[in-house]
Amino acid sequence: MLNPLPSWYDIPTKQAILDFVTAVTTERHPDFVPPAERIATFDNDGTLWCERPLLIQIFFLIDRIKSMVAENPTLATQQPFKAIVEQDLETLKTFGKKELLILMFSSHTAMTPEEFAQIAQTWFKSATHPRFQRLFKHCVFQPMVELLQYLQSSGFKTFIVTGGGIEFVRSIAEEIYGIPPEQVIGSSSKTRFEWRDGQPNLIKLPELNSFDDREEKVKNIHLHIGRRPILAVGNSDGDLAMMQYAAAGSGRHLTLLLHHDDAEREDAYDRDFRLSPLTIALDEVPKLGGRVISMKQDFAQVFPPV
Amino acid sequence: MLNPLPSWYDIPTKQAILDFVTAVTTERHPDFVPPAERIATFDNDGTLWCERPLLIQIFFLIDRIKSMVAENPTLATQQPFKAIVEQDLETLKTFGKKELLILMFSSHTAMTPEEFAQIAQTWFKSATHPRFQRLFKHCVFQPMVELLQYLQSSGFKTFIVTGGGIEFVRSIAEEIYGIPPEQVIGSSSKTRFEWRDGQPNLIKLPELNSFDDREEKVKNIHLHIGRRPILAVGNSDGDLAMMQYAAAGSGRHLTLLLHHDDAEREDAYDRDFRLSPLTIALDEVPKLGGRVISMKQDFAQVFPPV
Repeated sequence: MLNPLPSWYDIPTKQAILDFVTAVTTERHPDFVPPAERIATFDNDGTLWCERPLLIQIFFLIDRIKSMVAENPTLATQQPFKAIVEQDLETLKTFGKKELLILMFSSHTAMTPEEFAQIAQTWFKSATHPRFQRLFKHCVFQPMVELLQYLQSSGFKTFIVTGGGIEFVRSIAEEIYGIPPEQVIGSSSKTRFEWRDGQPNLIKLPELNSFDDREEKVKNIHLHIGRRPILAVGNSDGDLAMMQYAAAGSGRHLTLLLHHDDAEREDAYDRDFRLSPLTIALDEVPKLGGRVISMKQDFAQVFPPV
Repeated sequence: MLNPLPSWYDIPTKQAILDFVTAVTTERHPDFVPPAERIATFDNDGTLWCERPLLIQIFFLIDRIKSMVAENPTLATQQPFKAIVEQDLETLKTFGKKELLILMFSSHTAMTPEEFAQIAQTWFKSATHPRFQRLFKHCVFQPMVELLQYLQSSGFKTFIVTGGGIEFVRSIAEEIYGIPPEQVIGSSSKTRFEWRDGQPNLIKLPELNSFDDREEKVKNIHLHIGRRPILAVGNSDGDLAMMQYAAAGSGRHLTLLLHHDDAEREDAYDRDFRLSPLTIALDEVPKLGGRVISMKQDFAQVFPPV
């Protein structure tokens, strides 16, 4: 692949990535890794696409709740629907990550995963990010998309390991990242198997199956993949366990931590982002032999051209 | 692929498989399915390898328990260890499927998945089936291995969806079926993330996470794959929900049910196999448009040459 990472500046981070991929894919190199073991895991929110001022899935949730309220107006008088309908960002920001996910699941019940995917895919066709004024599905980080493509064309199997809803991310991951549903691991609700109109279906239940964050990411990597990643990429303390797990593997490995330090082009935040802070990973990742990616210094462009 | 299924007799079952694969892989055919959606799910015990007189994993369990008793002889006086050490098949046969799995998990605790995989892989190198007098890893059904290879070379992604332990099957699936760990779905125990000797590890816990049988197979297909299979293959009522789920998809699909009716070459059983009976699926699968495979009439050979 000629010039595989055009949207990365030619500074040490890019070189570290190129060196790593070259080493593990070169057959006579001492760090060679057979293709089947080239597992790369990526966080999604804040790593592959933007997550501020709100997670993209929260924007989706707001629109879903508005649709529900339109059908059943009495909902608008009750919390948490009230805060959402009134776009009460201050109240929304006080919700924890887990609370938000449970709220999300509770607004997605009594439907099959296929019905949910249809709703999400329809939403992604036109929903627009309020700050970046582009479709949400175009709020991906171009250098990360190039990194995914570079890895995929180098025989890696790329996985998303996200705190976001597994079905929400699956509904769009193939289109924007080239990652098929079976390579998306995420937070999930329980399902019920039932017969409806003579057909077997699953129904999404308002009950958490897995909240895929921190150490749970490692457990889910084991459950879904069954191999230790050799490359792990994240942007918050919620990704640190996954990165430590990758770095403890016996062969060559690389961990990458995206630091949002570019208020002008995207955003600048770390320990102050209550929902998903970046605090200790900033110190820990370099100790793992990993690299902190500076959005400001490493990304030649942030978003894809549209 | 020339003559892709040499160990199948040229009778209607083989032709149905060839017709199906040709249809879904031919671009201008009305039933064409893009490669990404060519998902095939296979049960393992009794479908890809033999399961009688005992599940292969039970033979493994017996050897594990014997090793444990050798280290701690007082165990031999207690049930259920007693029945195992004494090879009391009659008592063992009274155990239910779920009981056996829980017993299995309880004998596999306080170790990492990597340590477990190492034990299983070592066992597979030399452990021999008492009836067939061949390595357990050679107790696979040759026609099914050919079917897997045919599907893989036709752009299918082949998954195992087994009631057996996910780590046990993963330890050997790549070698004998060409199926990587991330395409093995199975029964699983819970894990704990912990630091040991300064390294992050998972530890297998004696607690069931998922018993992957019947409707749970469908839930796990959704959790791990996120797409409905277009081909589902099984051999018992425990696989029926998975086959019904595949058959309810919107496009072309095929379901195959292996009937063990060959006492001479392998075994003959269905409703009388208490652990995993085949009763209603024999009637239901043809109603789904599926096919019952007769081992006696369809398999030109049963096991691979060794």
